[in-house]
Amino acid sequence: MNETINHQLNHRTIRFFKEQPVDEEVVQEVLNVFQRTATSVGMQQTTIIRMKDKEKKEVIADIGQQDYIGEAPELFIFIADCHRNYQIARTKGLGEKPPAMDKYFQAVADTYLAAQNTANALESLGLGVNFIGNILNDSQRLIKLLELPQYTMPVLGLSFGHPDDNPELKPRIPVKYRVGVDSYPMYDNYLKELEDYDQEMTTYYDTRQNNKRSDSFSNQVLNYFDNNNLMRDKILLDIEKQGFVLFNEDNG
Amino acid sequence: MNETINHQLNHRTIRFFKEQPVDEEVVQEVLNVFQRTATSVGMQQTTIIRMKDKEKKEVIADIGQQDYIGEAPELFIFIADCHRNYQIARTKGLGEKPPAMDKYFQAVADTYLAAQNTANALESLGLGVNFIGNILNDSQRLIKLLELPQYTMPVLGLSFGHPDDNPELKPRIPVKYRVGVDSYPMYDNYLKELEDYDQEMTTYYDTRQNNKRSDSFSNQVLNYFDNNNLMRDKILLDIEKQGFVLFNEDNG
Repeated sequence: MNETINHQLNHRTIRFFKEQPVDEEVVQEVLNVFQRTATSVGMQQTTIIRMKDKEKKEVIADIGQQDYIGEAPELFIFIADCHRNYQIARTKGLGEKPPAMDKYFQAVADTYLAAQNTANALESLGLGVNFIGNILNDSQRLIKLLELPQYTMPVLGLSFGHPDDNPELKPRIPVKYRVGVDSYPMYDNYLKELEDYDQEMTTYYDTRQNNKRSDSFSNQVLNYFDNNNLMRDKILLDIEKQGFVLFNEDNG
Repeated sequence: MNETINHQLNHRTIRFFKEQPVDEEVVQEVLNVFQRTATSVGMQQTTIIRMKDKEKKEVIADIGQQDYIGEAPELFIFIADCHRNYQIARTKGLGEKPPAMDKYFQAVADTYLAAQNTANALESLGLGVNFIGNILNDSQRLIKLLELPQYTMPVLGLSFGHPDDNPELKPRIPVKYRVGVDSYPMYDNYLKELEDYDQEMTTYYDTRQNNKRSDSFSNQVLNYFDNNNLMRDKILLDIEKQGFVLFNEDNG
């Protein structure tokens, strides 16, 4: 156990922050960490949009349907970005050869790795973070708001600041169900296997300090798969609109 | 600056490891970090396959076309995994309603965040890591090898161990091109803007201790976009084979 791992084992989502701003030196240091993150074939296909404009932050809060997004002292939007490199390739003589899905997914890999690396740096400094997946509720609106060019796509938000919130650790599915040796860790009946975890989550929701409710993990899972979000399920069409080729002709 | 950030700023890809195995206690500690990673709507849709079988590791090295993958003391394959939860939902009465792309991408987010978090824990302990994207060179073969069920998809490998390698830090694109404020950091001519970086990379390749070569970033970028990998570009078809719904009917 060391300080890094201690912070990692104590990760909680921090939704509320003090008004105190994050020092600019800290932000710059964390951007250096972002820059040094591992990257697929060295292509560095991720970009951060740092949100300072209050009105734009409120639009993002509206997209994410969470007021507290607009209140956070700092908000980064992580972009999967093939634009910069594609322009370089075009300038060097590449013909019209827009990136296909393999390149999109490599940019996505760069982006999520960079987001987590950034979050680890922030938490190591005692700051609190909140990953915001809900920016994808209306990716077209976000793309316009951030003036994102072709061959880019927003994938994740990260708000951070000095924590004004101290939520309990959320229980997790036991490791043995999430780690297999040499093949997939297959069980006949996960609902039964996870009975104790389900109970633990129910107790967690029932006894936590804020936002108490009657709920269980398995009910959340049922609702999760029962409710399709049509705006979000059309993500491939949004990716295509941004210029990526979904299916290579030679692949039919 | 602290120990966590110090490790992050010094991240290098470590391809060669000492024979000394990684202590089992360390592996278990790191799996606890994996387990506690932030997760989209609490769904925890990622799974690790820990590779111990020497023959299977060699198949993965063959897929990735890199012998050293098979030699690494430890190799994790990170899986985007909606299988476990989908089975729970089905047992609880969900009809035939296979997950659409939004859920796939949420699993992908969980998986990459967990992979980077795991890597940071390993590096904090002085171990070296290598992310392996090339496992996707033949995802069908890997899916069979790992006996992955429907609604799962491999996304990234991570090999690690005690470093027997000390590569130079690889130069990175300056932060100002990778961070915008309130909108995308747009420049007219990235090739010209990145001239100094291009030269820095050429010097890096020319003077590094191992694997010297004559190369530049901009040439690599040109080759990257000029060469399509048909096996990898059909990734959406592979994802569809794994049971995910690419296009929701209501979205056309």
